[in-house]
Amino acid sequence: MDNTTQRIDAAAADRSDPLRGFRERFHLPEGVIYLDGNSLGALPESVRQRVLNTIDKEWGVDLIRSWNTADWVHLPQRVGACIARIIGAEEGAVVAADSTSINLFKVLSAALDLNPGRSKIVSERENFPTDLYIAEGVAKQIGKGHRLVLSDSPEDIPGLLDEDVAVLMLTHVNYRTGYRYDMAALTRAAHDKGILVIWDLAHSAGAMPVDLSGAEADFAIGCGYKYLNGGPGAPAFLYVNPRHHGGFRQPLSGWFGHRAPFDFDSAYTPSNKIEQYLCGTPPVLAMVAMDEAMAIWDDVDMAALRAKSIALCDLFIQEIDSFAERLGLRLVTPREPELRGSQVSYSCENGYAIMQALIARGVIGDFRAPDIIRFGFTPLYLSFAEVEKAAAILKDILETSAWDAPEFHVRGAVT
Amino acid sequence: MDNTTQRIDAAAADRSDPLRGFRERFHLPEGVIYLDGNSLGALPESVRQRVLNTIDKEWGVDLIRSWNTADWVHLPQRVGACIARIIGAEEGAVVAADSTSINLFKVLSAALDLNPGRSKIVSERENFPTDLYIAEGVAKQIGKGHRLVLSDSPEDIPGLLDEDVAVLMLTHVNYRTGYRYDMAALTRAAHDKGILVIWDLAHSAGAMPVDLSGAEADFAIGCGYKYLNGGPGAPAFLYVNPRHHGGFRQPLSGWFGHRAPFDFDSAYTPSNKIEQYLCGTPPVLAMVAMDEAMAIWDDVDMAALRAKSIALCDLFIQEIDSFAERLGLRLVTPREPELRGSQVSYSCENGYAIMQALIARGVIGDFRAPDIIRFGFTPLYLSFAEVEKAAAILKDILETSAWDAPEFHVRGAVT
Repeated sequence: MDNTTQRIDAAAADRSDPLRGFRERFHLPEGVIYLDGNSLGALPESVRQRVLNTIDKEWGVDLIRSWNTADWVHLPQRVGACIARIIGAEEGAVVAADSTSINLFKVLSAALDLNPGRSKIVSERENFPTDLYIAEGVAKQIGKGHRLVLSDSPEDIPGLLDEDVAVLMLTHVNYRTGYRYDMAALTRAAHDKGILVIWDLAHSAGAMPVDLSGAEADFAIGCGYKYLNGGPGAPAFLYVNPRHHGGFRQPLSGWFGHRAPFDFDSAYTPSNKIEQYLCGTPPVLAMVAMDEAMAIWDDVDMAALRAKSIALCDLFIQEIDSFAERLGLRLVTPREPELRGSQVSYSCENGYAIMQALIARGVIGDFRAPDIIRFGFTPLYLSFAEVEKAAAILKDILETSAWDAPEFHVRGAVT
Repeated sequence: MDNTTQRIDAAAADRSDPLRGFRERFHLPEGVIYLDGNSLGALPESVRQRVLNTIDKEWGVDLIRSWNTADWVHLPQRVGACIARIIGAEEGAVVAADSTSINLFKVLSAALDLNPGRSKIVSERENFPTDLYIAEGVAKQIGKGHRLVLSDSPEDIPGLLDEDVAVLMLTHVNYRTGYRYDMAALTRAAHDKGILVIWDLAHSAGAMPVDLSGAEADFAIGCGYKYLNGGPGAPAFLYVNPRHHGGFRQPLSGWFGHRAPFDFDSAYTPSNKIEQYLCGTPPVLAMVAMDEAMAIWDDVDMAALRAKSIALCDLFIQEIDSFAERLGLRLVTPREPELRGSQVSYSCENGYAIMQALIARGVIGDFRAPDIIRFGFTPLYLSFAEVEKAAAILKDILETSAWDAPEFHVRGAVT
């Protein structure tokens, strides 16, 4: 190639990678190039011992006393505080709790309550489906005729923001395309029309710096099991801007959201802090795994993380550019780093079988119907060499039609 | 004593205990008599290895593939099926998910939707507070003027059931008093007035046989971390009578409740089975612990469990009767076994400090404000000798005023 100045040299990039030391803090299986950390993050090595200690000592020996002695009772706040630091949230504005879907139910209900007299919830058709499903559920239960207005492309969003929109609800980085919205600009545009904004950070938290406070976002939700590496089905999180604390009630008013849960009052008096967004008893085993996974982030330079994320994605795109058109791959993720998250997706025919063939060769990404093969790039544990090799394996599979074997067409329950 | 024929002999009872073999399947700390299994069940020995396998192999090595290969995706149904067998539920009528509070939100919303045109939700003032809080939250969000009508004593419930009641919502066994409602009779009385019934089985599931199907109950919810021993903050469960499946929507309409979650449709099409009551991604680490804990129940004779539970409670009451009046304890749990669950509670002055003194002597029960000391009796891992000894220690503490030391008056976050 001629334009070597533009090209990323994988070996050189690995040598100068300031984050390369983090890989040893994760357990990664032999022979696997894991490009699915945006679906399930890899296992942090220290989680095993931490969970064992919780089982053996805290549960097994100290039993009920551990709610106090091991401070189980404040795990949602403690984990929330760790997450807050990497998403630019104010102190006391984040808790870890429940699932992303349930957390969206809470904050969307609260947002609609805070912005009465408007009928629309704006989102995008390509949003992660559960967000849209939850919006349907909230609107139906409130029963005041709120309706979901869905854009068909990111560019259409600003045009949909009018004085009848109560809430703009977007996933910061799209799960299929990897497209990234300009959080600050869209939040400002929405606020100008009196619209509250909810950001779903499922594909942002731990993938890049996020600045909720700087963007003056109203609410955010996100996932613990992707780039935060909290484990399968890890607790999710939610953010409420301090200016909205105490001003209204979210409807999932369980006892952990009470101002004094252990007074056992029969009437609900909500906490006027972020704790109001807690509901039932926190899942301790899942919470300690998440808490342990979050400890890694104390040492991560988020600017370096973002720089490596961009470089990993650029390298993958660069390698695939050399054969994409010839072999039927169409890049659906924006080329411009500022418009994307930490994933690269291609549309192609036979995507499901191609992904199965990749997995059989040790390159784990995933398939998203109808035609997307998706690769997530986790800067904490991926090397540039792996990314280069993954692209080479994909090329080989396509060139040899290796995906066209019967076993690669059998669908599992989760694809 | 003269009436030896009435008295329970602890040593003899232990010798003839058909459940005594189960104790070795639990980890119980040395020097502790654990009478708080109704707050947090003890650790089943096999949970450790099971969770380790999930961390090391399923998460650490197989990663995202475990949703299929380890069938993580069906954990809610699998655990639900185990629970179904011990609460008399029909096949396919129970799932494990979320917290008890959130599950109540789902089924109460569904019940109110199924029974329109009625304005009251009947419960009892002494119900576990989170149930009442959730009812407040549901009613407020629906915004149709539903109001909570609370009885001040169990006997008053039937008189509150009229044609304007949409839902009767009770905890089968009261968390403070241990009073147990007649599930079948009350359900029938409610149905006679066109009222739907939700039973909270937090203090019943795993404590005694329950027959939801026989009672024709409409809905039930319950807790995984008490008598089911699923671990701190374990997933909760919910039951929906098959006659109500598919007839309406619950509002927490996350993707796991979709008819085809992995089709990634933008519109919500609810499952017409129990799966509709799932919401977000299940917490796998917590679910596998729960799944493992449930394996024990395959071998439990529930009639024998109930017989031992009654005998353990009878023994405790018998021992305490000899000094209760003199030392200021008043039994608040019914003496009649058919009116109680598997706990015994006393009201007394200085209950908090007395419980702290007991805990310092290795007898772990708990305190419930304002004046209740509460003892749970878990038939799977308690011996009669322990119960006798616990009563003797309580007597000693009261006789010597050992509770009246400064350290026993310091309150923790969770009491």
